[in-house]
Amino acid sequence: MFKKILIVGCGLIGSSILRGSFSRKISKKILVFEKSKKNISKIKKINSKVIILKKLDKRISDIDLVILSTPMSQYEKIIPYLNKFLNKKSIITDVGSTKQNVLKLKNKKLNKYLDWILSHPISGSEVSGPEYGTKNLFLNKWCIIVRDKNKNKVKKIIRFWKKLGSKVILMDPIDHDKIFSLTSHLPHLIAYNLIKTAQDFQKKEKRNVIKFSAGGLRDFSRIAASNEVMWRDVFFNNKKNMVDVINMFIKNLNSFKKNIQNFEDKNLRKKLINSKKVRKMIINLKQDVSEPDFGRK
Amino acid sequence: MFKKILIVGCGLIGSSILRGSFSRKISKKILVFEKSKKNISKIKKINSKVIILKKLDKRISDIDLVILSTPMSQYEKIIPYLNKFLNKKSIITDVGSTKQNVLKLKNKKLNKYLDWILSHPISGSEVSGPEYGTKNLFLNKWCIIVRDKNKNKVKKIIRFWKKLGSKVILMDPIDHDKIFSLTSHLPHLIAYNLIKTAQDFQKKEKRNVIKFSAGGLRDFSRIAASNEVMWRDVFFNNKKNMVDVINMFIKNLNSFKKNIQNFEDKNLRKKLINSKKVRKMIINLKQDVSEPDFGRK
Repeated sequence: MFKKILIVGCGLIGSSILRGSFSRKISKKILVFEKSKKNISKIKKINSKVIILKKLDKRISDIDLVILSTPMSQYEKIIPYLNKFLNKKSIITDVGSTKQNVLKLKNKKLNKYLDWILSHPISGSEVSGPEYGTKNLFLNKWCIIVRDKNKNKVKKIIRFWKKLGSKVILMDPIDHDKIFSLTSHLPHLIAYNLIKTAQDFQKKEKRNVIKFSAGGLRDFSRIAASNEVMWRDVFFNNKKNMVDVINMFIKNLNSFKKNIQNFEDKNLRKKLINSKKVRKMIINLKQDVSEPDFGRK
Repeated sequence: MFKKILIVGCGLIGSSILRGSFSRKISKKILVFEKSKKNISKIKKINSKVIILKKLDKRISDIDLVILSTPMSQYEKIIPYLNKFLNKKSIITDVGSTKQNVLKLKNKKLNKYLDWILSHPISGSEVSGPEYGTKNLFLNKWCIIVRDKNKNKVKKIIRFWKKLGSKVILMDPIDHDKIFSLTSHLPHLIAYNLIKTAQDFQKKEKRNVIKFSAGGLRDFSRIAASNEVMWRDVFFNNKKNMVDVINMFIKNLNSFKKNIQNFEDKNLRKKLINSKKVRKMIINLKQDVSEPDFGRK
């Protein structure tokens, strides 16, 4: 499909692209740019055919597809090398969780004759590092591709993600950043905030409460173990939407508080019942399975 | 262990006690008080030896152990029947998620010669109903028992929960309600609130955003599908602690918002890194497994 692809940054997402690309025969030649020594030795174990680059130089001049899978804050440092060495037939894509900032960066810093089609696979986990990658990370998961004038190269990027198993959808960057501020970025921030609150509570009460986390705290702690650099980048780059959804969340939480303080039975129960509808929707949309969870085995 | 036990209310928790008690030979004779016709036919299928009571009358006079596993708001209606028909050798226990209110109710309404040892198994799921119960619901999970003067009967209740597989710990009711407001009640309220916020957002944006729930919203929607009567009872009965932890949570969330608005890199990242420590603790305490989660299969 592509003669030669380059994965820049090979953590959980990059190594999943690597595994998926080899196993689905997306490219015969796969190069990985990675600086961490610890990661390099792990990547070599994934597939002996992978070519590791410790720096970006003329060896990337004939690359067909470049996938940026570093934290977004690294993109700016990488662009000068793409400008210097890539040929104009190549396509660049990325996996960043926010898109308006990436588009701005591309317009400002990338040579005009180079093409960067922005994408965002909705997949991940609380773990980081190439050892956790899996060839099926993207299977049946959404991948958002940002609309672009270059229809031909968009088609190629669509084919790439479909080959990896994704369900692809095109979106405008403004819509993208708004939607995912709610469905992804806010839930992560809320999980982090709950764990921070648990830590403060434990300090104040001077006793081990985390010991009893099976009551619900457990599931949030998993989400709150996600990579801190990646999430710092997301929160900062989606600042305006984050502030909006945080304000909505706090407004609703104050209303819940009022319901509890005043024993407002009807109002409270209506909210509790309504959230079951969302759960049903999510299961019908195959975003989760219906089997009950009694705690992971 | 007990000659005759009575389970009052046979949903997820009650039917798990029923299954666990039969399979671990805790009692030869198990009676279930249940009014819902739909539930009764499901309960009969669990074990043909179960005796169903549609009302509480003199048939319960020789019961050794009564377990209240209805929503807490039902306890007050049940007590008069226990007062009327139970003998003083019997023990009452319950599975309610808050304990100060139950203690108050017991002191006010239960005949003085009857003994009620309060307990709270930290187990459950987002599903309700007897069909979802499992004999191992309590296995290796905490069960909190409220300290009581009647050491002899406390011992029997400890043995009962240990037989069902629980790890038992004694606690004061004030401590109990405080600790679980944070580790269980707040996480559930937060999950409900996130789903409410998603519904409001969807209405405002007039587009299907829940479709993209795999980004984190999914896991919260599971928790927010829990039984609404049970959780209404919990929130109302733990009002003071709920208000305290909600306030702590909002304070911390406002601080996160400030970090994002002002690009406070160091402060933000410190919080994000710190929550990994809690995750490690939870895994070391065997409250969860360390395997990464890529979405449930």
